[in-house]
Amino acid sequence: MADPDLPDNWGRWGADDELGTLNLITDDVRAQAAAEVRTGRWVSLAQPITPNPMISSPFAPTTVDVSPVQQLMSYTGVGVSADLMLVTNHHAKSTHLDALAHWSTGDQVYPGRPRAEVVTAGGVTHASTSAFAAGIVTRGVLLDLAVDGPLPSGYAVTSHDFEEAERRLDVEVRPGDALVVRLGWPATPVPGTPTPGISVDAVRWMDRRGVALCAPDRGDAFPPLDPGGPSPLHGIGLGRLAMPLIDAVALDDLAALCAELERYSFLLSVAPPRVHGLTGIPVNPVALF
Amino acid sequence: MADPDLPDNWGRWGADDELGTLNLITDDVRAQAAAEVRTGRWVSLAQPITPNPMISSPFAPTTVDVSPVQQLMSYTGVGVSADLMLVTNHHAKSTHLDALAHWSTGDQVYPGRPRAEVVTAGGVTHASTSAFAAGIVTRGVLLDLAVDGPLPSGYAVTSHDFEEAERRLDVEVRPGDALVVRLGWPATPVPGTPTPGISVDAVRWMDRRGVALCAPDRGDAFPPLDPGGPSPLHGIGLGRLAMPLIDAVALDDLAALCAELERYSFLLSVAPPRVHGLTGIPVNPVALF
Amino acid sequence: MADPDLPDNWGRWGADDELGTLNLITDDVRAQAAAEVRTGRWVSLAQPITPNPMISSPFAPTTVDVSPVQQLMSYTGVGVSADLMLVTNHHAKSTHLDALAHWSTGDQVYPGRPRAEVVTAGGVTHASTSAFAAGIVTRGVLLDLAVDGPLPSGYAVTSHDFEEAERRLDVEVRPGDALVVRLGWPATPVPGTPTPGISVDAVRWMDRRGVALCAPDRGDAFPPLDPGGPSPLHGIGLGRLAMPLIDAVALDDLAALCAELERYSFLLSVAPPRVHGLTGIPVNPVALF
Amino acid sequence: MADPDLPDNWGRWGADDELGTLNLITDDVRAQAAAEVRTGRWVSLAQPITPNPMISSPFAPTTVDVSPVQQLMSYTGVGVSADLMLVTNHHAKSTHLDALAHWSTGDQVYPGRPRAEVVTAGGVTHASTSAFAAGIVTRGVLLDLAVDGPLPSGYAVTSHDFEEAERRLDVEVRPGDALVVRLGWPATPVPGTPTPGISVDAVRWMDRRGVALCAPDRGDAFPPLDPGGPSPLHGIGLGRLAMPLIDAVALDDLAALCAELERYSFLLSVAPPRVHGLTGIPVNPVALF
Repeated sequence: MADPDLPDNWGRWGADDELGTLNLITDDVRAQAAAEVRTGRWVSLAQPITPNPMISSPFAPTTVDVSPVQQLMSYTGVGVSADLMLVTNHHAKSTHLDALAHWSTGDQVYPGRPRAEVVTAGGVTHASTSAFAAGIVTRGVLLDLAVDGPLPSGYAVTSHDFEEAERRLDVEVRPGDALVVRLGWPATPVPGTPTPGISVDAVRWMDRRGVALCAPDRGDAFPPLDPGGPSPLHGIGLGRLAMPLIDAVALDDLAALCAELERYSFLLSVAPPRVHGLTGIPVNPVALF
Repeated sequence: MADPDLPDNWGRWGADDELGTLNLITDDVRAQAAAEVRTGRWVSLAQPITPNPMISSPFAPTTVDVSPVQQLMSYTGVGVSADLMLVTNHHAKSTHLDALAHWSTGDQVYPGRPRAEVVTAGGVTHASTSAFAAGIVTRGVLLDLAVDGPLPSGYAVTSHDFEEAERRLDVEVRPGDALVVRLGWPATPVPGTPTPGISVDAVRWMDRRGVALCAPDRGDAFPPLDPGGPSPLHGIGLGRLAMPLIDAVALDDLAALCAELERYSFLLSVAPPRVHGLTGIPVNPVALF
Repeated sequence: MADPDLPDNWGRWGADDELGTLNLITDDVRAQAAAEVRTGRWVSLAQPITPNPMISSPFAPTTVDVSPVQQLMSYTGVGVSADLMLVTNHHAKSTHLDALAHWSTGDQVYPGRPRAEVVTAGGVTHASTSAFAAGIVTRGVLLDLAVDGPLPSGYAVTSHDFEEAERRLDVEVRPGDALVVRLGWPATPVPGTPTPGISVDAVRWMDRRGVALCAPDRGDAFPPLDPGGPSPLHGIGLGRLAMPLIDAVALDDLAALCAELERYSFLLSVAPPRVHGLTGIPVNPVALF
Repeated sequence: MADPDLPDNWGRWGADDELGTLNLITDDVRAQAAAEVRTGRWVSLAQPITPNPMISSPFAPTTVDVSPVQQLMSYTGVGVSADLMLVTNHHAKSTHLDALAHWSTGDQVYPGRPRAEVVTAGGVTHASTSAFAAGIVTRGVLLDLAVDGPLPSGYAVTSHDFEEAERRLDVEVRPGDALVVRLGWPATPVPGTPTPGISVDAVRWMDRRGVALCAPDRGDAFPPLDPGGPSPLHGIGLGRLAMPLIDAVALDDLAALCAELERYSFLLSVAPPRVHGLTGIPVNPVALF
């Protein structure tokens, strides 16, 4: 944590904390989230994943699109069909939760443990997906910055953009909220085309507002906005603020439903498979209205 | 579908249907589900999973507990920690959704397609997890049959038990509901000890009531109640009624919260990773109150 | 075994046999094989395999060539580098041994066992790679049919071709030999181009000569020479004669060395990893001169 | 390479070398190896591996022995049976070749390249299994130190033991040879029982004699003979001398055959699957007499 000019939450919730900014989701926040559920309409924020088959055949295709999930159809010997899947937990084509231990600041992991102790060949012992095991339920807010089309290539999203969007969409980001940000770009970078991305200024704003969880369609710019500094969302948000990220969400359906209902807040249920000890895990976040 | 005495829904929603009884979840049902969300309290219905490491070491343990998830810590070469997981989609230690194509009746899959066409080496082409891709949101009802302790070994749950529980818990199972049933037994059979299980009579009752989805902690008895017939929940419920199952849920936390709140209905959000074409998939169902 | 006109060895070495034509490799054959080793020159008959990385990164390539081997670099936490590999045992880009249980004739596996008993979800219980566990050592003979270039597209190799090659190359295929056949084609079929292949007549000749093991660069034609009948090498050779195949060998180096040494016989050492219970396994056959 | 008192071969064969002591296997050595093949008798030096099934069933066993190989039986939809295997390349229950890049000395890999350049998330770029791709053929010598039973727990094998064995067995280790050493212990350490192991003195002797490849049944002692220093075989032999190791060989069959034939030299064929870019790979070494 060499740079004193960057914000961090190391130590804020004690030396053994594994939740980071999820601590900001209080009973009161959850009650406000519950109050958002009135119609029974809902929408998924996850990218659809077409698995890549592991075909054991000389006639399999010779080239395949890389998928976050590989599927193996099992021989069962009976009338039941079953399969296994091999999952790449961090993948741009997969909407996934980043655990705090995914990121190291220097050789330390939040809130100051040596990475070599936390990350072992046998799994992650602290600040892993165990923190998400029972699911995360909070109020979500969509700041749609792409109502008029995708943000320009290379654009740096700032706190000004967020506040302008709050005014335009008549919604307010409050402590404990999940902040969903739509830049209008696909999660997978296209080689040769600089993406827009979240700036350090925008992450500082999340810190001031008490954002508990951030879910952008396109988070850190690629190539980086500032190649010499830490990446804003992963390096500062995830690593220093201990704010979990939902990487690579798909937001077109959410944006359409918010526009239809003229409402940009909702209950967000984030419940990945209840697997402990991972660095990240695919998730299908659900916004309930 | 040789046995005309058994109920089925093949053809009820057309020859191309992939949803089965999920068709019963109408806008009205979802509105009722939304009305259940008032406090922001929530609980997970998933068993916790400790993954089994694939340790590449001569000093790895020589014996391991089998886990539905195997974890591979990746070498990244940078300060980021990442991993992959190998998932057995149908596993008694994993709370998972069974897709309709998981089960065959004779050599056919709902709603009457040849299994050999539906299940291929490259994946499942009909009635797979694609049906769950955007998540399932409906009203859930817990019928807790184990308030006074686990049901006896070998016990066959009947419609009478369900109706008695409805009266006792002051709740009613209605069309489109997710029926959550607690027998008080762990999902993993213990060798040598007959489990209780759901009877054919109980599944017929689900059909009459219009249950959209069934989530028992212990579903089909092991050994089978009727070794000569189809298994009630998998063979009749999943295979013939086309009623998706959430296999192997963990219900102690839900039972405790229902008792505390004196309320046995809730909104149930069932949102597995958005992976298409599988026979089943781990899920972390969330009950919202 | 419905067709009495096709040759088979079912029952020839008893009801419990797992070796098939490997029984023809006698001490005398091995002594002859040993006599071939005089120079210390050797050559591999295996295709090189470039594994496909399972990269856990948003910046991984979006399209990859399918490889029989996927490599995962492990995080070890120490100065040792280690990895795992996921291997597709039957793959046209991988030189591999086919176990007898790989093939079914009707619903039976050599020498007449029900496939459902032999092939289980937990592995293969009879005529698996266990038969190759200690390695196979015998005399090898190369019949190079492509000295003047690859055989024509769609060409059917016959016994006449074999006998003509014996005369031309001054070599004789004897009982217990491994027959290595070079058609001059790559193992991987090119879509749209019919390959040449081994005919039924040629397989009958192998039977008459007592070939113990067959290793062609391009074995069964694709598309099949006779779409209505069993494939010559897999259906008749592997399935009925119980003659193990080394699928997809690479023979250019062997052909060059044989031409240089003016000798088409050698000792062939076929020693795959000593893994029991598989349907097939990658192997690196070595010809010693 | 901080310690000048330890022997090393870094730079001996140039800055781009990937073969290490395999360079010592000259045509003359191979001719001598060929001269050993006279009878056609042969024996495997590999441990048998029973794969561990990935059974996708609620009735799978709850505890399993860890195996270096996991087997997945595939659904093929036709009468062909096929499978995949997931292989842990470095495993005490698997006879495997260690590539030079498996070991780092400080943060460098033979012959002085930064480990971070050589070992990448996408595979190994230098001194990997590519060096073994076409197989290794050389003269092998067995020094059986366990003729009268296993060596004592904690015993340190020295050059004196090797020279005494040479006299007793009437065999001589010469430049380019593969040295096979039998301590009479299983490859898998038994918790709580110190194994014997190869000493630094013995590795210095290998260096003086020009050993090209070393294959011990029990190599580096566990716990280490000298916890403060580098492990003799891996740290000095593999890492500094660039002498590939065949880890975890099984030598009882070889010892019996050598005793029967009263001959302790042979041709050793070491031909793992021809997979490039790995840190190690299972192999079935074959000794031919």
